[in-house]
Amino acid sequence: MMTSETVGLDEAHMQDTGAHEPPAHGTPTRGRPVVPSRARLRPLGTRDVRLTGGHWGEFQERNRRAVLPHVEHWVERTGWLGNFDAARAGRLPADRRGREFSDSEVYKLLEAMAWELGREPDPELEDRFHEIVARVAAAQEPDGYLNTKFGRPGQGPRWSDLEMGHELYCVGHLVQAAVARARTGHPDDLLVRVARRAADLVCAEFGPDGRGTVDGHPEIESALVELYRVTGERRYLEQARLFVERRGHHVLDEIEFGREYFQDDVPARDAHVFRGHAVRAVYLAAGQVDLADETGDDALLAAVARQWRHTVAARTYLTGGMGARHQDEAFAEDFALPPDRAYSETCAGIGSVMLAWRLLLAEGDPAYADLIERTLFNVVSTSPSADGRAFFYTNTLHRRELGAVPAADEPSPRASSSLRAPWFEVSCCPTNLARTLASLAAYVATSDDEGVQLHQYAEGTVEGRLPGGRGVRLVVTTRYPADGEVRVRVDSDDERPWTLSLRVPAWARDGATLTAGGTTRPVAPGTVAERRTWRRGDEVVLSLPMAPRFTHPDPRIDAVRGCVAVERGPLVLAVESVDVPGLDAVDRLRVDPAVPPEVVDGRVVVRCARVALPEPGWPYRHDPAPVGAPEFEDVPLVPYHEWANRGPSTMRVWLPAI
Amino acid sequence: MMTSETVGLDEAHMQDTGAHEPPAHGTPTRGRPVVPSRARLRPLGTRDVRLTGGHWGEFQERNRRAVLPHVEHWVERTGWLGNFDAARAGRLPADRRGREFSDSEVYKLLEAMAWELGREPDPELEDRFHEIVARVAAAQEPDGYLNTKFGRPGQGPRWSDLEMGHELYCVGHLVQAAVARARTGHPDDLLVRVARRAADLVCAEFGPDGRGTVDGHPEIESALVELYRVTGERRYLEQARLFVERRGHHVLDEIEFGREYFQDDVPARDAHVFRGHAVRAVYLAAGQVDLADETGDDALLAAVARQWRHTVAARTYLTGGMGARHQDEAFAEDFALPPDRAYSETCAGIGSVMLAWRLLLAEGDPAYADLIERTLFNVVSTSPSADGRAFFYTNTLHRRELGAVPAADEPSPRASSSLRAPWFEVSCCPTNLARTLASLAAYVATSDDEGVQLHQYAEGTVEGRLPGGRGVRLVVTTRYPADGEVRVRVDSDDERPWTLSLRVPAWARDGATLTAGGTTRPVAPGTVAERRTWRRGDEVVLSLPMAPRFTHPDPRIDAVRGCVAVERGPLVLAVESVDVPGLDAVDRLRVDPAVPPEVVDGRVVVRCARVALPEPGWPYRHDPAPVGAPEFEDVPLVPYHEWANRGPSTMRVWLPAI
Repeated sequence: MMTSETVGLDEAHMQDTGAHEPPAHGTPTRGRPVVPSRARLRPLGTRDVRLTGGHWGEFQERNRRAVLPHVEHWVERTGWLGNFDAARAGRLPADRRGREFSDSEVYKLLEAMAWELGREPDPELEDRFHEIVARVAAAQEPDGYLNTKFGRPGQGPRWSDLEMGHELYCVGHLVQAAVARARTGHPDDLLVRVARRAADLVCAEFGPDGRGTVDGHPEIESALVELYRVTGERRYLEQARLFVERRGHHVLDEIEFGREYFQDDVPARDAHVFRGHAVRAVYLAAGQVDLADETGDDALLAAVARQWRHTVAARTYLTGGMGARHQDEAFAEDFALPPDRAYSETCAGIGSVMLAWRLLLAEGDPAYADLIERTLFNVVSTSPSADGRAFFYTNTLHRRELGAVPAADEPSPRASSSLRAPWFEVSCCPTNLARTLASLAAYVATSDDEGVQLHQYAEGTVEGRLPGGRGVRLVVTTRYPADGEVRVRVDSDDERPWTLSLRVPAWARDGATLTAGGTTRPVAPGTVAERRTWRRGDEVVLSLPMAPRFTHPDPRIDAVRGCVAVERGPLVLAVESVDVPGLDAVDRLRVDPAVPPEVVDGRVVVRCARVALPEPGWPYRHDPAPVGAPEFEDVPLVPYHEWANRGPSTMRVWLPAI
Repeated sequence: MMTSETVGLDEAHMQDTGAHEPPAHGTPTRGRPVVPSRARLRPLGTRDVRLTGGHWGEFQERNRRAVLPHVEHWVERTGWLGNFDAARAGRLPADRRGREFSDSEVYKLLEAMAWELGREPDPELEDRFHEIVARVAAAQEPDGYLNTKFGRPGQGPRWSDLEMGHELYCVGHLVQAAVARARTGHPDDLLVRVARRAADLVCAEFGPDGRGTVDGHPEIESALVELYRVTGERRYLEQARLFVERRGHHVLDEIEFGREYFQDDVPARDAHVFRGHAVRAVYLAAGQVDLADETGDDALLAAVARQWRHTVAARTYLTGGMGARHQDEAFAEDFALPPDRAYSETCAGIGSVMLAWRLLLAEGDPAYADLIERTLFNVVSTSPSADGRAFFYTNTLHRRELGAVPAADEPSPRASSSLRAPWFEVSCCPTNLARTLASLAAYVATSDDEGVQLHQYAEGTVEGRLPGGRGVRLVVTTRYPADGEVRVRVDSDDERPWTLSLRVPAWARDGATLTAGGTTRPVAPGTVAERRTWRRGDEVVLSLPMAPRFTHPDPRIDAVRGCVAVERGPLVLAVESVDVPGLDAVDRLRVDPAVPPEVVDGRVVVRCARVALPEPGWPYRHDPAPVGAPEFEDVPLVPYHEWANRGPSTMRVWLPAI
């Protein structure tokens, strides 16, 4: 389904409809993070889809108002931005601050600013953007090399630590920032020129006759394909192909965690599951899909989709979180998904959204949009605090101890507390959140030759384009996920019929209905399509069942045997100790699975007994510990993504059944 | 109970009975690893207790025959022993091999050889011992400094990386080797002189007016107390006291894992549980008990005992294994004891035995001997392969995948496979095993003013001494743990009465009996004492109930909820995939807890259903997965310590109940 034949689109047509935007074809302005030349669905960007309120509108505003200035403050404060000034002034390595990948945080900030400016211009933000770009650009060397950690006297030589040095990873994020700038109306901006020079050097150094290896942290693969899409320069695509094809053949040196840590253990086409460092794994897979899209490589796409399916079935948390292990930030074995000390890195969640979005565009399967929804609501939404100035790096599903309060004025370790931290020594997650939230609207809807597809539900407007320059405008009114009613009003006229497709989430198994043309009918999970000649004012209402529900784990997930979780719509819920008085109270609760959770005064509550726990002693006994006479109480739950906003607390997603 | 008053012993008397051995009082030859001046019980050494067969006799022989030569081969092959030659020849740092603590592996080998030579002389082994000592001694600098990693041009300065450099840790192991040599009849040996010079330098550098800090890896604390015990030099005791008292006051720099990693977070007297890196924690606690023994510091002893009780109740695996986390080889929070990827490092098990032995001597509580037994049979016994030439570094309780076969001819990572590896890049465990197995007999029995106490049951002989130079000889005949009958025959005459005390293990709750003086009576877990005037040939038979039994976990241990384990006597049992045909078969078993495990044809079997598992897909469901009609079968178990001796396999200790 990757070739123009199978999706019935030819190259000229794709350019017609804006799916491919080489600079020769006019200034792209529509703010789309991923623009495949060939795919089943065509993305709509941040200028096509506007979020005007509700959960995602609020997150988008929080990002602009709080996260972006906060990130800018910290990259300055930590000296990570100052590293570029030091490079220009010849003060490196003496004055260098931060880890080997700190340059990339500045690039992700620039990418976030670029998307944000494309979404909603702001002269002051524009000035700050140009100022940072100028400081970055001034550090670039005449041959295009740009990295503050390598290549100067007293530093490691260029490309001397590809396993862990992150040099090409940093170039990748520089390119991603440039692509964001190009896709928001500035294809010839200084940032784009800087990134192209850096990418040209990479092609010269790592091309067919160059160093036959790859970077230990995938990222540049997707970036180079995107740069090809923006510029039309095939050498970037070819370089991405070389990086993808080389990996898996033991081209990197062995490290303590083994070659699977950076996916150099098995070639992409031979792997059956994502493995190793979770962020690396999903970033790589995203680049592989991008490459497959542009080269018509069905086998590669199928290999990634197969690995995705296995990973979702056996290595993914209820929240959508990926990567269980702390030690190497890695996927564990199948079904090894401990809720306590789950790693579930915010960046792995973001990478999973990036990957699933690419697969959704390529294949159209609503299962990809299901995982995007789950991950956005339960990983991406969980990381930032309510004020947007503190973040979770890891997103555990069970917090056993209150832990220390993170320092407000210095970077924290990655996983130290039940509270979010303002910044980290490895601070990839806040900048990754910033760029994701700034481009969030681009993950909501797509169009194809037949019509428009809504994948995510948020208050806002959607402007799609059909072949022949026909425009379609939709107004979405909903309080989702606080409420299950999604009202889609057509706000454009067209004499010809087109199809409005809506995703019915997989969780909406019982009771989802669609009201259209005056009739209401039950709809099953998957895609529901209404094809007709729409008139301005026509309305479709998707009603999703929002009763809270128990969820049972696969029996192979040993770590949550005998437990249930509570979900409501797309939200995973949790019990938090601030709602349950008493020491260890959270761990003493036992759910009665015969009594479904319900909504009382607007909060979901679940019927629980509070059991007596054994006296301290050798914790392995001849007889099961007596539970005591159960006294039942209604225990309130919170959306998981809201936890830890009311002071230190303990927390559980999975609750033992009585 | 730590002072002479409370145990009714005065200093002179202790020397009388050999519990304290300053060199002025004759050549100590009895091979005792720990010799407190004041304690409730007095240890018997490897010359007092002889293991003549059975489980422990076989391990002791395997150690002498296979482990010791294997370790010697690998410290030579890896160049870790050669580092000393390179130091002497001025070829460092260019020719240095191995990690920063590799010197300590050579010292642990020397300690093992010393105990082994004390147990059973062997001219050839003696020659090899002296040869290695000579190579080590030749690397010592004129002022006593001895470390191949620091202090030369091109190396870090001495004492410049106390957090992770292991310099004092290495001195500690050097001293322990010297103590072993001194305690086996050679108090003036070259090794002892080398170690004293190294210890003297430590006292000069880190004394009251010196560097006011500690080593990131505890070990020297116990070593210095023991060196004081051997030499009578109080400055070693005082230096140990300084190291113990300084720690916990943030004297080391913060590291990524936090100060609790090396127990510098909280002073010893304020801590409530063992935390941080497990080996560091138990080594430190052992040193604290040694210090408390010699200084009469009841408060310190009570603090360690309190932490031990909390740790045993909430942070210890069924096997006795300690330390759940891979990332920092650390104790996790209370009740976070995942069986899959349990770390349970072999060295932490050994350290736990060292600690519990000291606490047993100090307080006499059989609970300490219970944990020693559990840990010896299920952690220490598990590490070496049947041929003694491969080892587990970590001792997981659930192995999900076969994993790769470790390379036979190069060091392995720490935790890579379902098979034991011949050597590791960090190879602390094989050498630690070697010294422990060589001194194993010293953990079996003690004496006090009233008589002799048997703490562990093994085929062999025990010679105890009572006040006034009275000798007691016992012959123990048993097939334990293959059989529950322990026959203790008195092989000496004495006109006066004395007490024979036997530990009844905590697990022997139902049906233990003691036959003595022609009558059989039930005995309860704890200590059973027979006081009488014994005649040569008198016999006592302890009969322990050896029916296999189910064991249930504390309900706070989330990771094994709904599971049972099977134990038999002191042995934890496991299901291994080589006994259960079929892919994933081990994970499909469900035990019927209504049918007790039984012994069939000499093997323990447990009645299990083999359930059908759901088809791959999103692993969280509205309804519990259907189990299918159970078909029951008898599944054979193996002693956990025997697993992975028949090729790669998956394995479970905790079995889900139907």
